[in-house]
Amino acid sequence: KHGMADQEDQIGTVTGLAWTQVGGEILTIETALVPGKGQIHQTGKLGEVMKESAAAAFSYVRAHASQLGIAAELLEKHDIHLHLPEGAVPKDGPSAGIGLTTALVSLLTQIPVRHDVAMTGEVTLRGRVLEIGGLKEKLLAALRAGITTVLIPKANEKDLVEIPDNVKQGLTIVPVSHVDEVLSLALTRPLEPALPGALLETTPAKARGVASQSLPH
Amino acid sequence: KHGMADQEDQIGTVTGLAWTQVGGEILTIETALVPGKGQIHQTGKLGEVMKESAAAAFSYVRAHASQLGIAAELLEKHDIHLHLPEGAVPKDGPSAGIGLTTALVSLLTQIPVRHDVAMTGEVTLRGRVLEIGGLKEKLLAALRAGITTVLIPKANEKDLVEIPDNVKQGLTIVPVSHVDEVLSLALTRPLEPALPGALLETTPAKARGVASQSLPH
Amino acid sequence: KHGMADQEDQIGTVTGLAWTQVGGEILTIETALVPGKGQIHQTGKLGEVMKESAAAAFSYVRAHASQLGIAAELLEKHDIHLHLPEGAVPKDGPSAGIGLTTALVSLLTQIPVRHDVAMTGEVTLRGRVLEIGGLKEKLLAALRAGITTVLIPKANEKDLVEIPDNVKQGLTIVPVSHVDEVLSLALTRPLEPALPGALLETTPAKARGVASQSLPH
Amino acid sequence: KHGMADQEDQIGTVTGLAWTQVGGEILTIETALVPGKGQIHQTGKLGEVMKESAAAAFSYVRAHASQLGIAAELLEKHDIHLHLPEGAVPKDGPSAGIGLTTALVSLLTQIPVRHDVAMTGEVTLRGRVLEIGGLKEKLLAALRAGITTVLIPKANEKDLVEIPDNVKQGLTIVPVSHVDEVLSLALTRPLEPALPGALLETTPAKARGVASQSLPH
Amino acid sequence: KHGMADQEDQIGTVTGLAWTQVGGEILTIETALVPGKGQIHQTGKLGEVMKESAAAAFSYVRAHASQLGIAAELLEKHDIHLHLPEGAVPKDGPSAGIGLTTALVSLLTQIPVRHDVAMTGEVTLRGRVLEIGGLKEKLLAALRAGITTVLIPKANEKDLVEIPDNVKQGLTIVPVSHVDEVLSLALTRPLEPALPGALLETTPAKARGVASQSLPH
Amino acid sequence: KHGMADQEDQIGTVTGLAWTQVGGEILTIETALVPGKGQIHQTGKLGEVMKESAAAAFSYVRAHASQLGIAAELLEKHDIHLHLPEGAVPKDGPSAGIGLTTALVSLLTQIPVRHDVAMTGEVTLRGRVLEIGGLKEKLLAALRAGITTVLIPKANEKDLVEIPDNVKQGLTIVPVSHVDEVLSLALTRPLEPALPGALLETTPAKARGVASQSLPH
Ligand SMILES: [Ca+2]
Ligand SMILES: [Ca+2]
Ligand SMILES: [Ca+2]
Ligand SMILES: [Ca+2]
Ligand SMILES: [Ca+2]
Ligand SMILES: [Ca+2]
Ligand SMILES: [Ca+2]
Ligand SMILES: [Ca+2]
Ligand SMILES: [Ca+2]
Ligand SMILES: [Ca+2]
Ligand SMILES: [Ca+2]
Ligand SMILES: [Ca+2]
Repeated sequence: KHGMADQEDQIGTVTGLAWTQVGGEILTIETALVPGKGQIHQTGKLGEVMKESAAAAFSYVRAHASQLGIAAELLEKHDIHLHLPEGAVPKDGPSAGIGLTTALVSLLTQIPVRHDVAMTGEVTLRGRVLEIGGLKEKLLAALRAGITTVLIPKANEKDLVEIPDNVKQGLTIVPVSHVDEVLSLALTRPLEPALPGALLETTPAKARGVASQSLPH
Repeated sequence: KHGMADQEDQIGTVTGLAWTQVGGEILTIETALVPGKGQIHQTGKLGEVMKESAAAAFSYVRAHASQLGIAAELLEKHDIHLHLPEGAVPKDGPSAGIGLTTALVSLLTQIPVRHDVAMTGEVTLRGRVLEIGGLKEKLLAALRAGITTVLIPKANEKDLVEIPDNVKQGLTIVPVSHVDEVLSLALTRPLEPALPGALLETTPAKARGVASQSLPH
Repeated sequence: KHGMADQEDQIGTVTGLAWTQVGGEILTIETALVPGKGQIHQTGKLGEVMKESAAAAFSYVRAHASQLGIAAELLEKHDIHLHLPEGAVPKDGPSAGIGLTTALVSLLTQIPVRHDVAMTGEVTLRGRVLEIGGLKEKLLAALRAGITTVLIPKANEKDLVEIPDNVKQGLTIVPVSHVDEVLSLALTRPLEPALPGALLETTPAKARGVASQSLPH
Repeated sequence: KHGMADQEDQIGTVTGLAWTQVGGEILTIETALVPGKGQIHQTGKLGEVMKESAAAAFSYVRAHASQLGIAAELLEKHDIHLHLPEGAVPKDGPSAGIGLTTALVSLLTQIPVRHDVAMTGEVTLRGRVLEIGGLKEKLLAALRAGITTVLIPKANEKDLVEIPDNVKQGLTIVPVSHVDEVLSLALTRPLEPALPGALLETTPAKARGVASQSLPH
Repeated sequence: KHGMADQEDQIGTVTGLAWTQVGGEILTIETALVPGKGQIHQTGKLGEVMKESAAAAFSYVRAHASQLGIAAELLEKHDIHLHLPEGAVPKDGPSAGIGLTTALVSLLTQIPVRHDVAMTGEVTLRGRVLEIGGLKEKLLAALRAGITTVLIPKANEKDLVEIPDNVKQGLTIVPVSHVDEVLSLALTRPLEPALPGALLETTPAKARGVASQSLPH
Repeated sequence: KHGMADQEDQIGTVTGLAWTQVGGEILTIETALVPGKGQIHQTGKLGEVMKESAAAAFSYVRAHASQLGIAAELLEKHDIHLHLPEGAVPKDGPSAGIGLTTALVSLLTQIPVRHDVAMTGEVTLRGRVLEIGGLKEKLLAALRAGITTVLIPKANEKDLVEIPDNVKQGLTIVPVSHVDEVLSLALTRPLEPALPGALLETTPAKARGVASQSLPH
């Protein structure tokens, strides 16, 4: 049912969290690969900030393609369509950043996303995860939707004191500071970077201490 | 006569349902294939939400082309023109989603659409059918127009209690939750997915339990 | 003289009928073929609805090119320029649809349009002719301009009771429901569809009972 | 001196006539051929109507290229720049149409324009010359600027009764109804249509009775 | 120091003169050649009139490339970037025309511009120099900035009576009527038109009597 | 932590300084290389002035590529994405110019930027550094963020008298007048211009006396 967590792990689909004046809500992120030339198309009444956020997420993925195990050829002949359902509802803000990044990586690697994980956090072009607003409302929405694990920015750890105990007991809340951690926690399989001999754009994930992260699943 | 159901099954033409302040109305959806490069052109005073809805429907069709039995080559040399007649009347909202998808699939497979079927429902990039508004007005309009079967979102099943008995008796109302069901019910022939050996983008339709659906025709 | 019916049958030129707050008026439609790649250019202060109407008319023509006897190659290396003279006067609405279609078909087949015929009617992407407004004012304008025959939508037949007798006596008024009838009546020679062996996009004209239509000329 | 008639016949430059609230004025039209692909660029604070007017003039010229003696190859590798000096002064309206057409034909044939001729008239895509406003003010401006001959629309002949005698004595005023007459009168040499064997787009000029027109020069 | 005349002759850089409500000011014009396809990019908060002015200047240069000694091939693989520093300050108007033209010619011929020369004047597509406003304020600004020579439109010669004597004594003021004179006076070396055999677009500079112009340097 | 100086020298990342009504702030500049054709994409709610500033910085880098040791081929197959984190916060003004230039040069040369250096200054297309506003607030923000060295425009040296002593003691403040100095001071390694035989666009850095500049590191 729409507005609830998916029942199965899916490719290219992520559960984000939105925050409106009337409370928090599930924000489903869908992606699809269509014939094209490496462009990204965005639909679902996204505001400018969210569109720019998705563009930055897409560039992060392209710039780190070999590290993420994405075949560069895939995007030479395809475009990506990014859609946020409930197309009449305006959506904006940068906090879907890590969700958008995860959806793109899942789509391009064909590794499913854990259906019981939701996430919120701005992402920078370097993959850093920045603070977001409305943490309490978002966590409540996640709980209502049947989510078990929520990834939040490390910079929002300070806000956890204001979260009701039942929410904190009902959810595994994982603060993250880099999108590598997000991918490690949300994808159902580890990424498979290109073999030695291929160019690695940045330091391997292991060197940043994220390889050992895992959630009960 | 315009505003009434067609008398014959047609290719690329679907009867949608619109909802305005003065009641429900038939929304005819027309499509045509013209020389081009895989773009979609939209005319008939569509608002931004409806345009995005059509773009998402088109991407759904392209991403599932082989499953739907659509030759990828067809769109390499053609554009699609989507037109909503009564060009001076503004149209908007996401509820034409499943109608737009059905029109595109019919056009690209050359399988006619049943002329006595109307439909309303937002569609997501994954093919999920989401709740719409104005169900009562739309059903009344369908009845007036000579429609016999209306496809509605499963999420709107709850609203059927408010529908007058004569409407429910005059129409076969079929709740659907995925666009596969819509296509199975609205097209006059089953889809013919690409043969084994070709890549199937998603789980075969049968595995989702939609293959056995059929309407008296 | 501008504002009056032409004295000769011309290629690519049609007399439409406009309706303004101060009465009806002749709306001259001009077209020309220029080097290009199959695009359509529109000038003469057209509003958005009229521009979309022309785009739909153009797609109708392209989608039915072989049925209409138009060489597909012609549009691979040409653009069409559509101009509505009196460039400072704003023009809008969908009612020029059949006139625009006729001008395009005449230009692309090089079959002249009867100079004593005027027309008004929205056209859909399937070639259906829809109801328009201002019938009385438009017929009066046609009469003043020296037109002898006016094609109107079948859906407007009901409005003929309000038309003064002298107008109905001075004009041959022909209700039409499909653009095939319009072309059959307005062009000076029958269309020459591609020979058997070529793909016919739709049912042959004869099958729809329009082949026998003709006007005294 | 700017604002006065040129002292020499020039290629691609025409003296138009503008009409503002404070009177008539010379409107210099300049053109240049630059490397490109057959596009037209317009600068000098032109309003939308004037821009569309120039686009229609350009299409007229392209559609009649061989009749006008213009090598089609010329525009395959060049763009045209159209500039109206006094770049800070807004300019609009369709009445520069015949001037724009003449400037384009002169540029593309390299036949100079008579420096003592000014002109005003809307042009249609068929080359018809339509009525303009402000005739009196424009003729006064032409006289002040040292112009000896002014081409005006035949439809404005009726306004000549209101023109002061000294203006009518000081100027040769020539009413025209087709742009062929304009070109015949304003260019310093006759056009040289492509040789027999080449396709003539329309009836030869002679057949329309314009070949014998000439001015004292 | 910015706002003062440069200390050295530079390539592609010209000192223009701006006129605002609070007085005159130096307007530095910078250009650079970057990989591209013959386009021009403009930055520095230019208004529409100034952007069109630069576009016309660029077309003048392209249309007269061989006369100016510019290799056509240079622009086939490069774009030009035009920047006006103090990027937060809005700039508009046509009076930078001759400065923009000079900067472009200097950049494309690699002939430096005299650092002690400033200039103001609208330029037309034929290279004519038209009248500008704010002459007094501009001359005062030139003097303050350490400029020794200012090129002004011949049409502004009439305004020199209102200029204070000390300004006229401190500056060499040169009225010009064609951009050829501007280039002859402002560039540190004569232009080298393409050799005989190459096509000269217009009359050679000498024939217009500008070859002998020179300034003490 | 975002809002604080980075702990490591990074490639393509620069610490700029912003000035708002409520004080100064760190402005992180991130860049990434993605597949493309030499375009620049900008996200993070940049205003028009800042976007033009980045475009000018990019052109400076392209025009001086060989002098800066950047392989021209790199940009033939890549685009640059420029992102300013905190995507919901509007950013504008030209003062990020030298920071943007430095980030681009670092990205394209793969030479890291010193993590303890921040900078503010408009840059022109010639690389000149122009005056900025809000110096005091920016220096305070740099100090708070853990920065040790701040590069400021030479034209702002006059404002240093108003800066509190503790700020001047806590920071090494270096006035600069050309972006060459900025690169020399902010990059962790000297640039390696293309070898002799390759074309140097401008005077070598040494000739301008910047080669010997260095900071304690
Ligand atoms: Ca909702
Ligand atoms: Ca948000
Ligand atoms: Ca209706
Ligand atoms: Ca709707
Ligand atoms: Ca009229
Ligand atoms: Ca109309
Ligand atoms: Ca004037
Ligand atoms: Ca006018
Ligand atoms: Ca200033
Ligand atoms: Ca100015
Ligand atoms: Ca902040
Ligand atoms: Ca700033």
